Amino acid sequence: MTTNNDDVKLIGAWASPFVWRVKVALNLKSVNFESIEETFAPKSQLLLESNPVYKKIPVLIHGAKSISESSIIVEYIDETWTSAPSILPSDSYDRAIARFFLVYIVSRCNILLFPAIKSIAAAQGDDEKKKLIKELGEGLVLVEDALKKISNGKDFFGGDQIGYLDLAFGSIFPWLRVVETLHEVQLLDEATTPGLVNWGQKYSKHDAVKDVLPEHEKLVGFAKFLAARAAAAAAASTPN
Amino acid sequence: MTTNNDDVKLIGAWASPFVWRVKVALNLKSVNFESIEETFAPKSQLLLESNPVYKKIPVLIHGAKSISESSIIVEYIDETWTSAPSILPSDSYDRAIARFFLVYIVSRCNILLFPAIKSIAAAQGDDEKKKLIKELGEGLVLVEDALKKISNGKDFFGGDQIGYLDLAFGSIFPWLRVVETLHEVQLLDEATTPGLVNWGQKYSKHDAVKDVLPEHEKLVGFAKFLAARAAAAAAASTPN
Repeated sequence: MTTNNDDVKLIGAWASPFVWRVKVALNLKSVNFESIEETFAPKSQLLLESNPVYKKIPVLIHGAKSISESSIIVEYIDETWTSAPSILPSDSYDRAIARFFLVYIVSRCNILLFPAIKSIAAAQGDDEKKKLIKELGEGLVLVEDALKKISNGKDFFGGDQIGYLDLAFGSIFPWLRVVETLHEVQLLDEATTPGLVNWGQKYSKHDAVKDVLPEHEKLVGFAKFLAARAAAAAAASTPN
Repeated sequence: MTTNNDDVKLIGAWASPFVWRVKVALNLKSVNFESIEETFAPKSQLLLESNPVYKKIPVLIHGAKSISESSIIVEYIDETWTSAPSILPSDSYDRAIARFFLVYIVSRCNILLFPAIKSIAAAQGDDEKKKLIKELGEGLVLVEDALKKISNGKDFFGGDQIGYLDLAFGSIFPWLRVVETLHEVQLLDEATTPGLVNWGQKYSKHDAVKDVLPEHEKLVGFAKFLAARAAAAAAASTPN
């Protein structure tokens, strides 16, 4: 069932966690949209015109309006298509808490996960790699605590339904699994993060999600490609 | 006129731009609040308990609820006290644009202004200082452009009324003036940023603002104190 016949396009890229977040939000609201895969090299005219400030994906194009930045797009979607259940909590205090933990999860992610993926690939020694993995694991225990507090014992941060924080952590989760595979470590397990393990199973099977997240092996291959490219660039810039 | 008799407290500090933002928002909504000046050394028990994650000001305490992060607090205030005019635009697309430019202004501010204040103080040579001032000036021209686009020729980002982005730029503005005084430069002038010059005059005289922003000389004194402390710390850490 779709709730609109609006003209909605999304400029994205299949491997981008920020794009997944927006796609799941559109699915939750049953919004029909055209998915446009960005070319990057060079950047498409459509991207340059619709996000002239940052020139970054995702960009949601709704009729003549362009909206950038994934969190802002998700709030726009939530406030524009109001006939489906809301993504942010309806109470103003619960919304504040969700926004706070979003910043927290995203900053953890920026501080730990993405640098970890890059640095682990580039890490010279085993010690450095171990240290990064350890920090990442500690960050996840904090997210586990946040899930416990916010979900009230339900499956999702949003309770029985996928909410704002589920979209955020849902973007991080598949890349965590990639780090686990690439580096033969276990970041999430029943002993230390049982809530997140359960969360991952429920989230990835959800109707709004299952066709959005790429297959694990495809992401692993992409991560290997990125690591090889980073290594080649590092080698090229090393003075002889 | 106050619209509530709720139990509202704000943990803040007189020189914090993030605290000014929240105070003006509360004033716009005519909310009575108790202002609590944070002690910092050591951090107060109230701060540690009410923002255990970041232990940072500002924290709004509304009855038994604590809310942290200035942008999130401002949205909470806007969504909780709804009888006064709203701070964020009422249209979902205009809200998205305001949130987008908030990120833009805040990131410009983080990238340029605060490092500029610190680095200018610590800058070894005149060349480095000049470069920082130049970058800051270029950033302000972009904010001037944003004001033109968003205000529709009115005084404020919010049009005739102070809105979300006015609160954000209102936090930066007094510190820009401090940089001007300390380094004998002009960052805002009629030729390059006429909109922001007019904005500054109107904003600082607004009823919701005028008792919130500290006096210029007091801020200059505080900036000199911070610079001296930074210089002393740098000298102490220089190897002999």
